[in-house]
Amino acid sequence: MSTLEELRARLCTSVLSDCLDAAGHRNQAMQARIRPLDDALVLCGRARTGLYAEVYDAPAGENPYELEIRLIDDLKPGEVPVFSCGSSGRIAPWGELLSTSARARGAAGVVMDGLTRDVRAIREMKFPVFAGGIGPLDSKGRGKVVAIDVPVEVAGARVVPGDLVFGDVDGVVVVPRAIEEQVIAAALAKLSGENATREALARGDKLAEVFKRHGIL
Amino acid sequence: MSTLEELRARLCTSVLSDCLDAAGHRNQAMQARIRPLDDALVLCGRARTGLYAEVYDAPAGENPYELEIRLIDDLKPGEVPVFSCGSSGRIAPWGELLSTSARARGAAGVVMDGLTRDVRAIREMKFPVFAGGIGPLDSKGRGKVVAIDVPVEVAGARVVPGDLVFGDVDGVVVVPRAIEEQVIAAALAKLSGENATREALARGDKLAEVFKRHGIL
Amino acid sequence: MSTLEELRARLCTSVLSDCLDAAGHRNQAMQARIRPLDDALVLCGRARTGLYAEVYDAPAGENPYELEIRLIDDLKPGEVPVFSCGSSGRIAPWGELLSTSARARGAAGVVMDGLTRDVRAIREMKFPVFAGGIGPLDSKGRGKVVAIDVPVEVAGARVVPGDLVFGDVDGVVVVPRAIEEQVIAAALAKLSGENATREALARGDKLAEVFKRHGIL
Amino acid sequence: MSTLEELRARLCTSVLSDCLDAAGHRNQAMQARIRPLDDALVLCGRARTGLYAEVYDAPAGENPYELEIRLIDDLKPGEVPVFSCGSSGRIAPWGELLSTSARARGAAGVVMDGLTRDVRAIREMKFPVFAGGIGPLDSKGRGKVVAIDVPVEVAGARVVPGDLVFGDVDGVVVVPRAIEEQVIAAALAKLSGENATREALARGDKLAEVFKRHGIL
Amino acid sequence: MSTLEELRARLCTSVLSDCLDAAGHRNQAMQARIRPLDDALVLCGRARTGLYAEVYDAPAGENPYELEIRLIDDLKPGEVPVFSCGSSGRIAPWGELLSTSARARGAAGVVMDGLTRDVRAIREMKFPVFAGGIGPLDSKGRGKVVAIDVPVEVAGARVVPGDLVFGDVDGVVVVPRAIEEQVIAAALAKLSGENATREALARGDKLAEVFKRHGIL
Amino acid sequence: MSTLEELRARLCTSVLSDCLDAAGHRNQAMQARIRPLDDALVLCGRARTGLYAEVYDAPAGENPYELEIRLIDDLKPGEVPVFSCGSSGRIAPWGELLSTSARARGAAGVVMDGLTRDVRAIREMKFPVFAGGIGPLDSKGRGKVVAIDVPVEVAGARVVPGDLVFGDVDGVVVVPRAIEEQVIAAALAKLSGENATREALARGDKLAEVFKRHGIL
Repeated sequence: MSTLEELRARLCTSVLSDCLDAAGHRNQAMQARIRPLDDALVLCGRARTGLYAEVYDAPAGENPYELEIRLIDDLKPGEVPVFSCGSSGRIAPWGELLSTSARARGAAGVVMDGLTRDVRAIREMKFPVFAGGIGPLDSKGRGKVVAIDVPVEVAGARVVPGDLVFGDVDGVVVVPRAIEEQVIAAALAKLSGENATREALARGDKLAEVFKRHGIL
Repeated sequence: MSTLEELRARLCTSVLSDCLDAAGHRNQAMQARIRPLDDALVLCGRARTGLYAEVYDAPAGENPYELEIRLIDDLKPGEVPVFSCGSSGRIAPWGELLSTSARARGAAGVVMDGLTRDVRAIREMKFPVFAGGIGPLDSKGRGKVVAIDVPVEVAGARVVPGDLVFGDVDGVVVVPRAIEEQVIAAALAKLSGENATREALARGDKLAEVFKRHGIL
Repeated sequence: MSTLEELRARLCTSVLSDCLDAAGHRNQAMQARIRPLDDALVLCGRARTGLYAEVYDAPAGENPYELEIRLIDDLKPGEVPVFSCGSSGRIAPWGELLSTSARARGAAGVVMDGLTRDVRAIREMKFPVFAGGIGPLDSKGRGKVVAIDVPVEVAGARVVPGDLVFGDVDGVVVVPRAIEEQVIAAALAKLSGENATREALARGDKLAEVFKRHGIL
Repeated sequence: MSTLEELRARLCTSVLSDCLDAAGHRNQAMQARIRPLDDALVLCGRARTGLYAEVYDAPAGENPYELEIRLIDDLKPGEVPVFSCGSSGRIAPWGELLSTSARARGAAGVVMDGLTRDVRAIREMKFPVFAGGIGPLDSKGRGKVVAIDVPVEVAGARVVPGDLVFGDVDGVVVVPRAIEEQVIAAALAKLSGENATREALARGDKLAEVFKRHGIL
Repeated sequence: MSTLEELRARLCTSVLSDCLDAAGHRNQAMQARIRPLDDALVLCGRARTGLYAEVYDAPAGENPYELEIRLIDDLKPGEVPVFSCGSSGRIAPWGELLSTSARARGAAGVVMDGLTRDVRAIREMKFPVFAGGIGPLDSKGRGKVVAIDVPVEVAGARVVPGDLVFGDVDGVVVVPRAIEEQVIAAALAKLSGENATREALARGDKLAEVFKRHGIL
Repeated sequence: MSTLEELRARLCTSVLSDCLDAAGHRNQAMQARIRPLDDALVLCGRARTGLYAEVYDAPAGENPYELEIRLIDDLKPGEVPVFSCGSSGRIAPWGELLSTSARARGAAGVVMDGLTRDVRAIREMKFPVFAGGIGPLDSKGRGKVVAIDVPVEVAGARVVPGDLVFGDVDGVVVVPRAIEEQVIAAALAKLSGENATREALARGDKLAEVFKRHGIL
């Protein structure tokens, strides 16, 4: 089987999404509000999950980042922290310093449905960050990780620790472990088929005929 | 009268919008959620409409793209497929292959309030696509064209087949056929007037005086 | 104390936001829907406020821009018009001509939770505009300034005339006059501390240890 | 022509809405979020409009209710104050004391897309109030009437002073002055036709046949 | 097995929902925006589905109600028309005449995520209607049934023709055919267990102990 | 000072809200989406808070209700559990059994921005429940209490343990401990003043004069 790096170079979210659909897994794409900070970067790695709760207080003496820090410090090469933050827009888990630390551990990128900041520095690092928005707020007193390495939902897609997470300019898809091999094989096959379709369409063949011939759209 | 290509080079949505307002047509601009994939491209063409319904099933043996394919295969040079997809975020009608086919028929671009994918390839093609978002999902089993060449609403603006559709970095406006000539003439006139206003303001004249003199803001 | 220009060069919204939080002012960042037209520009200036009301009529003989024009014509160098437009998406207060006029008076930029247009021209001017979206619609008959130089709320943050307004790629924060000196001092101090943290993380130190040592995340 | 009181007894919003549709006026029903405080009451009267702006300050020495008071004190029998409050949920223009005053002037009821309070007392008065919600907040420092007797939009429907406003358990419709006579005549005619349809359906006739016979659904 | 009428008398949505959860079917409750017109009525029947599309035109000569009429005329005793209308708030499929016709065929009630009207008459009929809101608008030119007897989603819950649909004051749940017997048996069993729990709590036993003892909350 | 029971009999949310406004506390009313299950009931008590997090999993062997049970079992007479559930509509913390247990401990009612169920039984108990909606779903595997007796926000209002919580048909207001005595005194005074205003308005005095005389609206 291919390495994560090979998959990152060859696959794309749209074809993965079609193959997940074909396998009967139809809720594997995150909602369109999740966007890359840098459209040119591709993310491919294994999910490590963190679940945020909204909080309204930061008690003195408590480390508000405790579980988040534990997750980052435990990252292995090729892993991707994936944070479930809800849709309040109040939780902003990510920034330059966490990007620096995650990259130092070999993380392949990060995904969250919350906000991120320090966008200029992160773009310069070429570190793949996919987020639900951009904002300067810190999470302290607004959100807190209450569980790590548990199943979560992020922007409508279920993410289980160990799932393959793939992101590019078209968005983010999650490939469950159990069907990973089958979906990747189907995706690589479909990518070849698309070339013939594209060429036929580019020279002006009718879509109806090309679709009949190749079954790809 | 000017060709579509000439209009594309000379007009812009903000001035067209002002002239539509002045003509009493005040709902001709699509909502701000409709954005170009490429801010540098300008779209000018005649609407061919498609109406999507949300579906929750893709029956075996049924071609889920039937009417969409019929619309694309029937495109004439200068036409613009315009898809009404509602606001569910589940309907994603467009991608690289359809762009390739539409361009091969001479389409001037495409507009939809649904999602589009294969963004990298479409940007490389320099094909003007204006959409309600970006996402990897195919429409199969999520949305289906149920009528073509009928009046629709797209992101708040009514589009009748044959209407002039104009898009640039500021958004998309729809010019109804019946007032097209009058609106274009007014827009070209206003564009000249704006130059004098801009120069006066740039050299520091008070806005109150300049607005009194030229009546343009 | 530093000039606005010095602050613009040295500060950033994320650190200012942390220092506002630390000072107990936790609602000073505008919501994530407020974005710069140009991610590379930084805005730093003093707020001049305008309050818009939605209107549904533009009576003949009435100047719909009266108070907006008065505000722009009265701008002093380093000031920033800040428009409170609500969340209807119908109010579009800004464009190229107002940018030209505001810049001619020395304005440092502009902030609004409404829409802006003429985006191409404004980007060429390198004038810092932060807005709630992009759209071609004029405000005439849709929105009208009903008060200037009054306290307002813009995308969730309270803005009082004279407040320091700071914007960059991460968003916009508002620094109330009464705590300005204290917050700026804390921000400049924090920026130094971040360098040590960043270096430690980049060479692979555990986040838990670095956070314990520097107290910065 | 019938008096307002006769119309109130004989008409209903659903039939008026159908007749407005048939006359080509298809945006005359307010959105479903506008509900009566008392499902049993029917409102029929002529619109007197008030336009609210969101405010964030109540300057000392200013009467925050000035224009609202002027509108109420000027009400004539059969009139209906109609307030356009936007969709922020912050503006709450109505309560028991205003109901008492409006009723004393002979007002037929009140309509607003903002909030109302003192619901228990208003229900006891049997005064027809249609509102966008219920909440205890006063409007002072949150919203202010900035114009009266101007065209407005309320929950999606345009209301011009003098329009016929009709509300019942199904919602609120606005009948423009110019087509009032025609729409009322059509509504009274349709109400007769519905009886025959209802009887046929109640005894089990197929809908397809009844609709063919009477053309009413 | 029990008849629909017996189930209607003995079951309730909250216990059915718990048993569906326990069976691993966790998306069977419609969203909270679906409310009964009459809190006192209980609905229990088998789903017959209709899928609406938003339309923006009612072509002359076309029967806009064709498929809806076909569905109603084909209803068998104990069936429940279930309409998927999306969340636009523009589609209003139901009213007094359709209620009259459906009841004449023996329908057990109706469920839709669109709007309904003629609420006063429907309440007098004691016909169980669960809807996404109340409004006077007809569907003609706004929505059209484009498929009947297909799988749909209604307010977040999947409904397949033949599924058991149960509604009461707490909302609406959908019991898939394949697990119907098992879920009903579990629900009837749970209802007995709740009595002991309720009595223990009413006499002041600690919740912790009672939950430990009975495992029911 | 008055007992909770006396305050419940004499006060109302609208007057408390005005007095909180006057004291400079302008965010003490919960949003209009919080409604009583029974419009006739009034709630007055001291807040005991619970903070929910959304979860997507219910691990075997874990008691998903642990902290919620601890809070209920610890209730003292006159206390009011107040649950912060966010706005997802997925968290449904309350039903008949918890109502039974809370009432047995002497609780004065309950407030939450999540959903509640078993509405028929709760209404029969005459137990005051104020909630963000009605739905049959249990919280298990959807939401979990992660902290009790901490400051929270519920539907836009901050609630600190011990705060006075008051609810009636107009909604819910929160009176912070520190200003409780002052606000209650002001509210009782204002209630007397309103009588004179009401009588003057009922006999037809102009609103402008009455407001000038009494300063109450």
